[in-house]
Amino acid sequence: MKKACIISVGNELISGDVVDTNSSWIAKRLLKFSVPVVSIFKIGDDVALISDTLKRAAEQADIIIVTGGLGPTDDDITRNGITEFIGEDLYFDDLAWQKIESYFKRMGWVCSDKNKLQAWFPDGAQIIDNNLGTAPGFKVDFDGKIIFSMPGVPSEMKRMFAESVEPELEKISDGTVIKVKKVKLFGKGESTIAEMLGDLMTRDRNPLVNCTVSCGVITLYIIATAKNEQDAQQLIDSDLKKLQDIFGDIIFGYDEQQFENVVGDLLRRTGKTLAIAESCTGGLISKMITDVPGASEYFTFGWVTYSNQAKILQLGVDDETINKYGAVSAEVAGQMAIGAKAKSGSDYAIAVTGIAGPDGGTEQKPVGLVYIGIADGKNCDVREFKFSRDREFIRLRTAQMALNLLRLKVSLNVV
Amino acid sequence: MKKACIISVGNELISGDVVDTNSSWIAKRLLKFSVPVVSIFKIGDDVALISDTLKRAAEQADIIIVTGGLGPTDDDITRNGITEFIGEDLYFDDLAWQKIESYFKRMGWVCSDKNKLQAWFPDGAQIIDNNLGTAPGFKVDFDGKIIFSMPGVPSEMKRMFAESVEPELEKISDGTVIKVKKVKLFGKGESTIAEMLGDLMTRDRNPLVNCTVSCGVITLYIIATAKNEQDAQQLIDSDLKKLQDIFGDIIFGYDEQQFENVVGDLLRRTGKTLAIAESCTGGLISKMITDVPGASEYFTFGWVTYSNQAKILQLGVDDETINKYGAVSAEVAGQMAIGAKAKSGSDYAIAVTGIAGPDGGTEQKPVGLVYIGIADGKNCDVREFKFSRDREFIRLRTAQMALNLLRLKVSLNVV
Repeated sequence: MKKACIISVGNELISGDVVDTNSSWIAKRLLKFSVPVVSIFKIGDDVALISDTLKRAAEQADIIIVTGGLGPTDDDITRNGITEFIGEDLYFDDLAWQKIESYFKRMGWVCSDKNKLQAWFPDGAQIIDNNLGTAPGFKVDFDGKIIFSMPGVPSEMKRMFAESVEPELEKISDGTVIKVKKVKLFGKGESTIAEMLGDLMTRDRNPLVNCTVSCGVITLYIIATAKNEQDAQQLIDSDLKKLQDIFGDIIFGYDEQQFENVVGDLLRRTGKTLAIAESCTGGLISKMITDVPGASEYFTFGWVTYSNQAKILQLGVDDETINKYGAVSAEVAGQMAIGAKAKSGSDYAIAVTGIAGPDGGTEQKPVGLVYIGIADGKNCDVREFKFSRDREFIRLRTAQMALNLLRLKVSLNVV
Repeated sequence: MKKACIISVGNELISGDVVDTNSSWIAKRLLKFSVPVVSIFKIGDDVALISDTLKRAAEQADIIIVTGGLGPTDDDITRNGITEFIGEDLYFDDLAWQKIESYFKRMGWVCSDKNKLQAWFPDGAQIIDNNLGTAPGFKVDFDGKIIFSMPGVPSEMKRMFAESVEPELEKISDGTVIKVKKVKLFGKGESTIAEMLGDLMTRDRNPLVNCTVSCGVITLYIIATAKNEQDAQQLIDSDLKKLQDIFGDIIFGYDEQQFENVVGDLLRRTGKTLAIAESCTGGLISKMITDVPGASEYFTFGWVTYSNQAKILQLGVDDETINKYGAVSAEVAGQMAIGAKAKSGSDYAIAVTGIAGPDGGTEQKPVGLVYIGIADGKNCDVREFKFSRDREFIRLRTAQMALNLLRLKVSLNVV
């Protein structure tokens, strides 16, 4: 089986100023061609280090994918690092330069002399066109290894990978199939999940079952390796059935599904609509719901009632209730949900009110205290939560919990 | 000067399922101790590869920081990889196990036998307590190098780093000072910026000026290296002045400032309030504004008027205007902004309406067409934009543009 290494180049990556998302994206795409990634390297714009890291990557893998450092500024020196590694010189490619110039013309931009830098390539490289930007990529064959060099701008890299790198990967695939199925759980801790899994996580099993945690969501990966698609799928299906039997409705979704996709599908399938009234989450739940294309089918009205006045004027919350119980209370969450449902004429309404911090907490009502109300045609359930950690975590956890409660409620109404 | 390498361990990192944000965070914190990062390695849960990568890191750096693979599940084998590298054995630490058990008790959770795995450490390791979770970290001194091993859960890692790793780093700092100042620009392309910069980006300069682009925001990094704090600051100040002269109000912020911080500061300083009415961004702008603690001082009312009916009922948009010009039009954006301002009684209102895609576009009104209205006490400016790329990009770019337009408007009103 062919293996790959990924090298992400850029001073901004090792200074911590930019989080490298390219390597994760590439790793995922490589798996489709049954090419597992051995190591991912993030290094600065340094010719010697690029060359040295290529050497190390070539020891581990057959395919090396380099991103970043192909721009028009003086710190873009990936082409030099690769040239040093393969022991060649750089040459100026007139045709590539013409294409860069015409790209600028087409976009109505002024082409700068700096952009000439982007028309230099290692001798023997095969140039890869960039249809979304000015930096062409290139492919180099060296000592039985294949090196792809692509720009670091994610949209340009992704398009170039799909259009030019994937066809090359297809040519060298050896037929082994790796299939991955993700099962997403919410509501139990990691070690409890591990115990419930029993022997399924044994290291030498096929499929292999791995486990990750992110902000309360536990993802189990079923990874099956087989000689063909069908055998791999059978291995996956058999483990999937086991997990469904063990975890039931703790499983909220699969693969790339987020809460907003699962809830959206449920609402669309049942022909129901949703309104959202947010205080402490400040628009996050509406934002998540509308991350999904076509959300307008089931989501119509949202309010960010950050002040008491907004809660009263927009949702019809009783000001005496606020005075008596406080804006962060089960009573207000309930009135917000009922008000949002009535004002929008929707089938369901979510309301949240809480203290996201870092300030605003008291002994009675500490930072992290959150009330979530879910109203449907029949009633309005309000639940209290105490989340810990920071503002971002509390807001995200509140949003996830609200969408999960809605999921469970809608599912129950469907049965 | 001491240097560092970071190793992030986890199969989910090389399969691309999880984006590693720990290494960026650590790299940034290390710079405070003038410890630059040479390489960041992301590798799977594999004992031999962990050991081998430690060897490579030890060739490049003095300090090696490992995160991940300390959990209670069978794929957590970082402790084994480090033990192999230093040629020692693992031992079971009774005291650490007692602490894990009492942590579970305190949280009211059931401690599982699986958690015992977390009480094994390399011989000679110095155990580091985990005050936020069950996995202790540890420190190993080996062959003149220092290895820190921390859990991969970001909140646990961050707290452990601040409480236990930073005091160790202080001890070994050699006095060289690296200072970084970030200057953030919006509204010009990368090669134009590079030309405007002239010689400032020359590679052998001190300060070094680097450049990155992310979703339309260009960040310039002024990186000064000096023998002491004061000299480094002088180098920074001198370059900063040059950049301010060159770029003027194209600069929207500095360092960690985002649009929402800059706009929030401006509103707070001028004692003004803001309302937000969103269609295509679906709550994103409100979410960004309320990401900032204390946003309730200037942000009171937000609407996510995703349907025509919501625009009419909640913001008082005229239904004839919608019929005549369509919901995505300058006219509707203007009425939304004016309606939001009036209903909330705020000083400023932002309104956006557009087509985020991927569906819903027509020849006259393609995906990416967005209208942004900004109302103040005097008038309401509406501007048309055509953004390209995908739904996520269009929504984010719309939000950034709206906040930048508000920034320019509020600044103008201040003068």
